[in-house]
Amino acid sequence: MILIQDATINNKVQDILIEKNKIKKIGKNLIQKENLNRKDLKIIDGKNKIIIPGLVNTHTHTPMTLFRGVADDLPLMDWLNNYIWKMEANLNEKIVYDATMLGCMEMIKSGTTTFNDMYFYMNGIIKGVQETGIRAYLGYGMIDLFDEEKRENELKETVNTVENIQKLNNPKINPTVSPHAPYTCSMELLQESHNLAKKYNVPLHIHLNETIDEIKTVEEMTNKRPFEYLDSFGFFNGVKVISAHNVHLSNKEIEIIKNKNIAISHNPISNLKLASGIAPIPKLMENTVLITLGTDGCGSNNNLNLFEEIKMASLIHKGNSLNPTVVSASQSFEFATKNGANALGLNAGELVEGALADVVIIDINKPYLIPNENIYSHLVYSFNGVVDMVIIDGEIVLNNGKMVNINEEKVYENAEKSYNKLLNNSDE
Amino acid sequence: MILIQDATINNKVQDILIEKNKIKKIGKNLIQKENLNRKDLKIIDGKNKIIIPGLVNTHTHTPMTLFRGVADDLPLMDWLNNYIWKMEANLNEKIVYDATMLGCMEMIKSGTTTFNDMYFYMNGIIKGVQETGIRAYLGYGMIDLFDEEKRENELKETVNTVENIQKLNNPKINPTVSPHAPYTCSMELLQESHNLAKKYNVPLHIHLNETIDEIKTVEEMTNKRPFEYLDSFGFFNGVKVISAHNVHLSNKEIEIIKNKNIAISHNPISNLKLASGIAPIPKLMENTVLITLGTDGCGSNNNLNLFEEIKMASLIHKGNSLNPTVVSASQSFEFATKNGANALGLNAGELVEGALADVVIIDINKPYLIPNENIYSHLVYSFNGVVDMVIIDGEIVLNNGKMVNINEEKVYENAEKSYNKLLNNSDE
Repeated sequence: MILIQDATINNKVQDILIEKNKIKKIGKNLIQKENLNRKDLKIIDGKNKIIIPGLVNTHTHTPMTLFRGVADDLPLMDWLNNYIWKMEANLNEKIVYDATMLGCMEMIKSGTTTFNDMYFYMNGIIKGVQETGIRAYLGYGMIDLFDEEKRENELKETVNTVENIQKLNNPKINPTVSPHAPYTCSMELLQESHNLAKKYNVPLHIHLNETIDEIKTVEEMTNKRPFEYLDSFGFFNGVKVISAHNVHLSNKEIEIIKNKNIAISHNPISNLKLASGIAPIPKLMENTVLITLGTDGCGSNNNLNLFEEIKMASLIHKGNSLNPTVVSASQSFEFATKNGANALGLNAGELVEGALADVVIIDINKPYLIPNENIYSHLVYSFNGVVDMVIIDGEIVLNNGKMVNINEEKVYENAEKSYNKLLNNSDE
Repeated sequence: MILIQDATINNKVQDILIEKNKIKKIGKNLIQKENLNRKDLKIIDGKNKIIIPGLVNTHTHTPMTLFRGVADDLPLMDWLNNYIWKMEANLNEKIVYDATMLGCMEMIKSGTTTFNDMYFYMNGIIKGVQETGIRAYLGYGMIDLFDEEKRENELKETVNTVENIQKLNNPKINPTVSPHAPYTCSMELLQESHNLAKKYNVPLHIHLNETIDEIKTVEEMTNKRPFEYLDSFGFFNGVKVISAHNVHLSNKEIEIIKNKNIAISHNPISNLKLASGIAPIPKLMENTVLITLGTDGCGSNNNLNLFEEIKMASLIHKGNSLNPTVVSASQSFEFATKNGANALGLNAGELVEGALADVVIIDINKPYLIPNENIYSHLVYSFNGVVDMVIIDGEIVLNNGKMVNINEEKVYENAEKSYNKLLNNSDE
């Protein structure tokens, strides 16, 4: 058992006791109160530390760490055609593994304990997730471009991914079904995705309404806006759906989101960087929609630090609506914790007894966290994301800012090597 | 002399030699090439390090560190009347000193080497600046509320501040003349400010056009928009002016800014948080206006990490204009370095021979800075601001992330004590 003493937890100085992979008890003086035997405990001094639930990043493409900075300040189609897709053509399982190691480390070091991912070369991703000890929801990103042969392949990849992950029987790794988007996937693929999600009882993860252009494409194709189109064949019925981006939404689409309990993954930094626009989050909140946060991939952010997303979510809607009261610090913090866990059906995101022990410990002796009051405001508006300790599923994976079981230098070195392969497509 | 070897400098791996307070030489193998004697040198290994010019924060109120998080998510007038002004009434020189120590440390630790400040209890600020070793431009913030007696007092304070600072003969501490804004200062005070800036040959620092309401106030009072009003009595003529905020600007005002060479201090995070709006930076850039960056005070940001401002400046105008090509990474980086120095008339902001030795060293073995290419993109879009070494005016003030001559714990402790005094106004 792990006992952290005298830390700030839920705004009180108290202890937290972790047994196996769960939070067993939160309270003052737990050694006495719970009659604990010191020799059964790993005791950690929590003085001048704040403990928060691990963050949940609900939309990313982790292996895109190697695309960080390769192409900025470009229009979307230029970015995709001349940089991203060319480099993606050079990917392989080893490169994706190296990139995943780098990305998982980056997330852990900035307080994220769970992420929801859509990409390919799934074995490379799974390997990186297992080695770093992070919790993940992984989907093979399906794109058939309306071609039947491709469709069969994509569905087979998804079935393989779901079954391989379920066979691992690792409570930290969960599959999803992840059709890319309605402008890249046929209706048949979307329908079959829905069926697979139901069959395997896993979430659906999809991009929706990121740009005005893609919405037009769907409208030309189907005479409907994307959410209406998907709703017309029951895509949202009886399954968990995490919808990424949702930048441009009609009132009717907001109704669908509300009625079908679709979880929104808000990615404000990516949406600004690619000039997609600003999602109508205050309006969605008025409609009691579940808002969560995602970083998107490092091609368009360019990092995986979810604390930046929290700050941006609290800022951008104030400036955009000229109303400083929308998206408060506590609401934004919940987007990244409780709501994210809720969207994925995960028993985490809050520091409560019985929840999974996914917790993050932050040293508050930093200039930007002083005065030591209103600490949730500091975490949202002032913190830079550098955390000290991370516990995932009851295991310490980061200690004093260092990965416990990973040779960090080696990860950086391998990432550099794989980056060079990606650029040159060399066989070396 | 300090010699840093084999660091990434201006996109090349090379050495930098610092003599007294200047950059003497930049190049490869300087020991041989310059025939240097090792015993005259403090040699620093720059491998896996990038060196950048120290950042220049052109608008802040440093002692407001103690207002961090005390009141978020509120309308401006509620924020001022019910929180900020009440707490400011409890300030004294000791509290301002403690708050300044905290703020200067926060800036140094996030790579800022120069800041331009407007506040009061100037002796407390000057003391904190001297002890931490940062470079500063300091102005007493004048507000007369159109009252003649107040005006005389305010002007006297400014004259005292300017003369005290000039007497210090410390090349790192420079005075400014800082009338708060045209809606809080009489025309006489503004005119006299201009005269003092000319007399002492120092910059003018002022808030302009932060909110729509204040512009209306000035229009009702003068029948002119703020920049037109100030221009009508020659406020901008023949002096350096740093204008903070500039969120709402008419075309005519942009003309004035251009023609009078007014330097813009863009404060995007504060402007979003207080819901003031989004400044027309792309349009100002089209007009070749000098854009610099400021954090504003910690009441409305809530930190002094200028790297966040750099990222925000590059993001917000893309999303706002739906154009991903505006405000590139390199432009935004220049706002915070070269342009900031330029606005203040400071021989810094670039790593060139002969410039002041205000330099910042960053360890690039961090997940968010890998792959080690396109490093300026990473510094803008991915870096969290945690720097390793800071040299100001040729002196190492931060080493391995720690202040060289400051007891950090003591600064935190004093800041907490002063914060409590501020809240309680206790005599203790």
